[in-house]
Amino acid sequence: MNRYAMYHAADSSYCFPISPNEIVLRLRAAKGDLVRAQVLYESKYVIGTVQKSMDMSRAYQTELFDFFEVTLHLSDTRLGYVFYVNDGEKNYYFSEDGVSETYDFSLGFYNFFQYPYINEADIMDCVPWMKSAVFYQIFVDRFHMGDKNKDTSYINTEWGEVPTPKSFCGGDIRGIIQKLDYLQELGISAIYLTPVFSSISNHKYDISDYYNVDRQFGTNADLKELVEEVHVRGMKLVLDAVFNHCSENLSQFQDVLEKGKESKYFDWFVIRGDKVSENRDNYETFASCDYMPKFNTSNPEVQRYLLDIAVHYVKEYDIDGWRLDVSDEISHYFWRKFREEVKAAKKDAVIIGENWHDANSNLRGDQYDSIMNYAFTKACLDFFATGCMDAEHLVWRLNGLLMRNSSTVNRMMLNLLDSHDTHRFYKEVKKERWKMKAALALLYLFRGTPCILYGTEILIWGGYDPDCRRCMNWEVTGPDGEYADIWNLLTGLSKLRKEYELADGIQRLYTKDDMFCLENETKQGKINLYINLGNEEVAGVPAQSFLVKVNGGVLLNG
Amino acid sequence: MNRYAMYHAADSSYCFPISPNEIVLRLRAAKGDLVRAQVLYESKYVIGTVQKSMDMSRAYQTELFDFFEVTLHLSDTRLGYVFYVNDGEKNYYFSEDGVSETYDFSLGFYNFFQYPYINEADIMDCVPWMKSAVFYQIFVDRFHMGDKNKDTSYINTEWGEVPTPKSFCGGDIRGIIQKLDYLQELGISAIYLTPVFSSISNHKYDISDYYNVDRQFGTNADLKELVEEVHVRGMKLVLDAVFNHCSENLSQFQDVLEKGKESKYFDWFVIRGDKVSENRDNYETFASCDYMPKFNTSNPEVQRYLLDIAVHYVKEYDIDGWRLDVSDEISHYFWRKFREEVKAAKKDAVIIGENWHDANSNLRGDQYDSIMNYAFTKACLDFFATGCMDAEHLVWRLNGLLMRNSSTVNRMMLNLLDSHDTHRFYKEVKKERWKMKAALALLYLFRGTPCILYGTEILIWGGYDPDCRRCMNWEVTGPDGEYADIWNLLTGLSKLRKEYELADGIQRLYTKDDMFCLENETKQGKINLYINLGNEEVAGVPAQSFLVKVNGGVLLNG
Repeated sequence: MNRYAMYHAADSSYCFPISPNEIVLRLRAAKGDLVRAQVLYESKYVIGTVQKSMDMSRAYQTELFDFFEVTLHLSDTRLGYVFYVNDGEKNYYFSEDGVSETYDFSLGFYNFFQYPYINEADIMDCVPWMKSAVFYQIFVDRFHMGDKNKDTSYINTEWGEVPTPKSFCGGDIRGIIQKLDYLQELGISAIYLTPVFSSISNHKYDISDYYNVDRQFGTNADLKELVEEVHVRGMKLVLDAVFNHCSENLSQFQDVLEKGKESKYFDWFVIRGDKVSENRDNYETFASCDYMPKFNTSNPEVQRYLLDIAVHYVKEYDIDGWRLDVSDEISHYFWRKFREEVKAAKKDAVIIGENWHDANSNLRGDQYDSIMNYAFTKACLDFFATGCMDAEHLVWRLNGLLMRNSSTVNRMMLNLLDSHDTHRFYKEVKKERWKMKAALALLYLFRGTPCILYGTEILIWGGYDPDCRRCMNWEVTGPDGEYADIWNLLTGLSKLRKEYELADGIQRLYTKDDMFCLENETKQGKINLYINLGNEEVAGVPAQSFLVKVNGGVLLNG
Repeated sequence: MNRYAMYHAADSSYCFPISPNEIVLRLRAAKGDLVRAQVLYESKYVIGTVQKSMDMSRAYQTELFDFFEVTLHLSDTRLGYVFYVNDGEKNYYFSEDGVSETYDFSLGFYNFFQYPYINEADIMDCVPWMKSAVFYQIFVDRFHMGDKNKDTSYINTEWGEVPTPKSFCGGDIRGIIQKLDYLQELGISAIYLTPVFSSISNHKYDISDYYNVDRQFGTNADLKELVEEVHVRGMKLVLDAVFNHCSENLSQFQDVLEKGKESKYFDWFVIRGDKVSENRDNYETFASCDYMPKFNTSNPEVQRYLLDIAVHYVKEYDIDGWRLDVSDEISHYFWRKFREEVKAAKKDAVIIGENWHDANSNLRGDQYDSIMNYAFTKACLDFFATGCMDAEHLVWRLNGLLMRNSSTVNRMMLNLLDSHDTHRFYKEVKKERWKMKAALALLYLFRGTPCILYGTEILIWGGYDPDCRRCMNWEVTGPDGEYADIWNLLTGLSKLRKEYELADGIQRLYTKDDMFCLENETKQGKINLYINLGNEEVAGVPAQSFLVKVNGGVLLNG
């Protein structure tokens, strides 16, 4: 047996409660190494003398590893356990002290694995609406201008012109309200807006007043109306919490600029020395942007200020959650407070971090529910765009991503192909339309919650910021025009997500020859996705095409 | 290269900040597999174009793995990094996506490892006094009776008689006060008392009034005086927080017994049904003891009640920390609140969990500082007592334990050979005195904080509870009697811990032939421990003996 590969950690993504009396256990082993994996378990107060056993199933496979999984249903949740495995030749035990050929349960209280007791406070709940949601990300300035009477003097770029970093195109909240029916027809159930609060930039990630909607985008009343109209349609709205940094124009920072150490806000920021230096290089910022000073979120006053903002929009505007900008640069301590206050205000509000990397330390139930899943993006790029990964490696990579976090978190991961911070995926696949569609099918059917960037439905094209932030072209939208195939694909996939409880089903990734296959077994039936990137037909799936089958019949293809 | 063995996880015990601008990185690889390990790193905002590199040193070795370590000193703490290793034949990169032969830093923002920013709130502080402390655990009823005037009618066992589960022998808080000078002479700097609050049992782990010292043990004023006298001597006092469960006699549980669901305390416990059943089998308890009902610590009222108790003794009695009974069965959520309130009341109060198993999920800086290190106990049993582990395996096992947690936590781990919940270690080594002494030398010199059970200095003997809880024999204590060798050993080792900053030094475990060797390189000099369990002399260390050398000269042996 390959002992180097054996891995388990209690109270982690390898062992987590999913209800007051159920615990999921995972065990990692070298691929193909074990012919059988079992867990021997009992209440830790009796395991010394008796043990139950359960077979574990080989649930996921990566390039190097098999992951076995089992869900234990317990009457006494004070769980002690040891794995018992067979490599085809011998039986082995695997405990906290590693692999051994014998195991003395009477001394097990020293080194069995344990989940000591399921406390309700430690069970992570799945936000119910998140499991079947379809998200649409809107970069407000570029989506739709709804208020024809507003002062448009700030607009410096004609709608449709390729934007520069300083372009203002006129999109606003009334524009979104006017397009809610459109979004609903497209199958969208949740909207994530990039920031809407007062700011001199087009992106508004440098906020100077957190309590007011930027005048370019409308009024606070508009925002309230948007949420109401969203809710009338049974949809959800998530706003962007820019709490890592602010604008240099925030009054508190202006006070510091003026008074230096004498300002009562001096400790709201992270400044070396007694004042902001003339060349503005002695304080922490977002990236290296001196106009975006970083908040000192270790300061309790700053915490109170930001938490009040977070709760304000949940309570007063009834928003359905926050996406957390640059969340990974803010302390765990802050996000714990944030979760506590936001969830107290609205239990089903969702909290989505912007962590581009493995964020398990933020996703253990005490901080976020989810992250923008850029690791999924990277997997899709490697498979669909650069081709540096074949179907088998895609299966392995995606399974590896699922093993980073609990199944509860996996069902809420915000999967995306692109965002306002990347190239448009359609550019990455060099405008190969069928590939884009195949990727969208994967996005919608893979474990988690899909999020498309505005304009994906009309294949808006573009490179990195600001090129990915081009204006919507409303003349080509809808089910009849140039992008009817995309429209039909997205609406078809959304319908599947609504009608089939994917998140509560069993998902299996595998390959046939070099074809990528995904199977969702749900209460309502079976959904299969086949993606054949190759130049040969495989099992009835033509070369360079994809197929979505529902209960064996072809529903979508391209 | 053995790719199965490669392991790293960001923001974990493999990557943790130790100051506002220092991060420790660890990398695991198969033993002997790598000839070189480096980390390529930079601010994540510039690593796409330039990288610094640092060599990592092979710091720890277990049976299967080498652990490489490096401490990075950063000006910009927004760290991105990738490992660069050589197996003697080839170079490899190791990122979040695994091992690869090439790595494209320009796309690294998707899959380099990262520690996104050091927030002060996330840096775990080492409790300064804990690093050099020597703990002494006192089971109060068996230590010393100081109050000769008290009502002794509860005493049912003569001092020195072998105790039964129901023995009351008369030990009390005044008795401890009277022995503080003795303890200080023995080199003790911190005392941990098993529970002292009102309770009908001798162990008092079933508490019926958290706000009063049990009359058998004395008064609240006695406790206050004890803390003062402890502090006068520069020592510390830690009490036992029994917050998982209480006594059936707690008034709140009595109210529930009487009124069932109508009691306002019904939800303070975990009861199935509308009332406690006649045969008392429908509510959660400690182990299976129906007289110890488990608190529902998910209930905010219970949290408030217990947190108030915790803070009360810190603020009003000035105690120096809490040992947390059955802490592993209480939620992380509760311990986070506990830490916040206790540390706010006294920054240097120490929080020591009773988790017999890997407790990393409690030791990440947001809950406890330390645990009772029973995994260390087990290693010592396997080496000294049963002999099922040789010196090499002891090194590997101990190194493995160190790799479970950050170096900050390791310096506060409460290492122990035995406790009121185990056999006496002297029984385990079958009264082989030199082995007991060798184990004590290891206990005092190994990374962490040693804790001896009362009477270790006179080799109190005994099996499992209640046998391990025999009375102190004050007639044989001190530097001159039958146990002078133990006295001299313990005082000598304590002196070393005081005079040499072990915790801030470098520790190295290794073997010579089959001899166990430990080296502490400190600012004040070098301390070596050699333990030769074999029947042959090894490198000047006689068979079946141990040796402590200080700067090359023998200080202690046996």
